[in-house]
Amino acid sequence: MTADTPSQSETLNGQAAAFAGRRGRIALAHGGGGQLTDQLLQHHILPKLNNTVLGDLLDAGIVGRNPGRVALTIDSYVVQPLFFPGGDIGRLAVTGTVNDLAVAGALPTGLALGLILEEGLETVVLDSVVSSISTAAEEAGVSVITGDTKVVGRGQADGMYVITAGIGRIPPGIQLHPARLEPGDLLILTGAIAEHGLAVMLTRDMPEVKSQLRSDAAPLNIMLADILRHVPEIRFMRDPTRGGLAGLLTDLARQSGRRIVIEEALIPIKPEAQHAAAMLGLDPLDIANEGKAVIVVPADKSEYVLDLLRGNPNGLDACVFGHVAGDNDGLAEMWTHIGGRRLLQKPYGEQLPRIC
Amino acid sequence: MTADTPSQSETLNGQAAAFAGRRGRIALAHGGGGQLTDQLLQHHILPKLNNTVLGDLLDAGIVGRNPGRVALTIDSYVVQPLFFPGGDIGRLAVTGTVNDLAVAGALPTGLALGLILEEGLETVVLDSVVSSISTAAEEAGVSVITGDTKVVGRGQADGMYVITAGIGRIPPGIQLHPARLEPGDLLILTGAIAEHGLAVMLTRDMPEVKSQLRSDAAPLNIMLADILRHVPEIRFMRDPTRGGLAGLLTDLARQSGRRIVIEEALIPIKPEAQHAAAMLGLDPLDIANEGKAVIVVPADKSEYVLDLLRGNPNGLDACVFGHVAGDNDGLAEMWTHIGGRRLLQKPYGEQLPRIC
Repeated sequence: MTADTPSQSETLNGQAAAFAGRRGRIALAHGGGGQLTDQLLQHHILPKLNNTVLGDLLDAGIVGRNPGRVALTIDSYVVQPLFFPGGDIGRLAVTGTVNDLAVAGALPTGLALGLILEEGLETVVLDSVVSSISTAAEEAGVSVITGDTKVVGRGQADGMYVITAGIGRIPPGIQLHPARLEPGDLLILTGAIAEHGLAVMLTRDMPEVKSQLRSDAAPLNIMLADILRHVPEIRFMRDPTRGGLAGLLTDLARQSGRRIVIEEALIPIKPEAQHAAAMLGLDPLDIANEGKAVIVVPADKSEYVLDLLRGNPNGLDACVFGHVAGDNDGLAEMWTHIGGRRLLQKPYGEQLPRIC
Repeated sequence: MTADTPSQSETLNGQAAAFAGRRGRIALAHGGGGQLTDQLLQHHILPKLNNTVLGDLLDAGIVGRNPGRVALTIDSYVVQPLFFPGGDIGRLAVTGTVNDLAVAGALPTGLALGLILEEGLETVVLDSVVSSISTAAEEAGVSVITGDTKVVGRGQADGMYVITAGIGRIPPGIQLHPARLEPGDLLILTGAIAEHGLAVMLTRDMPEVKSQLRSDAAPLNIMLADILRHVPEIRFMRDPTRGGLAGLLTDLARQSGRRIVIEEALIPIKPEAQHAAAMLGLDPLDIANEGKAVIVVPADKSEYVLDLLRGNPNGLDACVFGHVAGDNDGLAEMWTHIGGRRLLQKPYGEQLPRIC
């Protein structure tokens, strides 16, 4: 062993210091699920990893062929605070992953749990989160079948981060994809919007304010699987999490190449959510939901799907809120309360850090 | 909205402060992959999530039945520094997950990539890690099919954490489990030990020392699949990562209920690794490997397996280094260089933080 010139690893480790200010840096807004997240993916991640499955940018990747198709999904949860009205980071991690599988048309068959714990975290906090994970998994009818636990130094994981991956089996005949949208299809929302993101942000940014608002985090897999079994003609499903309804609809319009039209007056939202959004200066369309799905159906199936949804505790407020129009311009448009029309934009990203 | 008594979420968020010093806390050593990690799992994680698959505590969970068995695995990578001789956090994340699938007998079919990035991270660092992920995935013949990116505040992810999950298909007829060990079986090691952990620790703790030592991080899936295809009688395989060879062997002895005997003189280790371990005051048996596997085979198949391994760049130094003895006491024993016998112990955990 001799002392000589810096090794390649030292050079790389030193780059952050050496080139400070001269190169691009990650900003919190890159994680907001908005336009900046898209830019990060398009410029720094997708080009090197590109393949047709990942390029679809759906919530789950699908491998294999009928009848053995398997969906895989992963999500890291970095929400602050760890506990909020209606849930905690553990419940969120399970429902988020289960819902990503469910909207891909998959029946969840197993979860993988990664924990990154911070030195000094009280085990009572860990216990509480693991209990929530257990309860939510039971609610969804799925088990944690493998896991991994790491510990990092004080301050380096803001308490804890939870990562869940999940796999699911896709029944034969199910084919959900933006490319399947047709003019005249209707858009269904399974319930009222914006409650998860607002509950977290109120707890974090205005702890002095008391509100009835609770996170809507809930597993949707049993409800959505039932509907898909009855109506295999469903075109596409997705859950409006990070990026909110605006993010989902602008993505869907772009990916399908269709014009998507929604009507503001038809979007279910509770008065307390509207109030909280106004107080925080946020557009409810931009805010994350963790127990809602958007379902695109052929018009002649919409009443049947609504009936089925409304028979489920997580679908009581289901309603049609938009349609696929004939223009093939890849834009999402909202007809507003006051009779105007505006194009939806994906949130930029800076307003909503760390809500999931 | 009214101001009233603290909500349940506030109470839980306040627990860390309120009960400081009076309750259990997570220590860095809980993440070392040793006895303390076991205690954390046994007391705080497994009881609430228990099911037979997770309870096996193998590197991957398996769902489904023949011929459609699917293995799922997850690992979080928090290694410091991000770049080290022979690899970086990206290469490590791919090879670790691919190898967890490979030792479960699975053919990897897809990877999921979670990134937790710290605000202020230079994009040039991210680009370099994503390139490594791409290169390692190509080497393993597998694609990243889904992913998720989050951003946390400055200092809260020590640069970046990488989480990889993977799925794989288990061919019919493959049945790898500690319960299949029989007295007389031989233990094969695919190459020299301790290089990954030592390369990382030298870079981190003794940056002034120059060494030829490099991480052995390498995907083993193609080599191991080939061997399993030729020798389906293989009993069990596992990669000695966190916890090292000592951790693997004590786990295997306990899980199989058999006595495992290894011979110190037969364990391949390079002089520079021996030197570095001595300098750092560590036992090479405790140190993580990221490109090695232990394979348990019926004695009459061992020469064939060795021949096959040695035809592969990752198996050139493969050798028999131990056997399964007749005592059914669940202990792992080493016959030492000087003719003694000592029971192996799983490392406690405090010596080796953040090496993967």
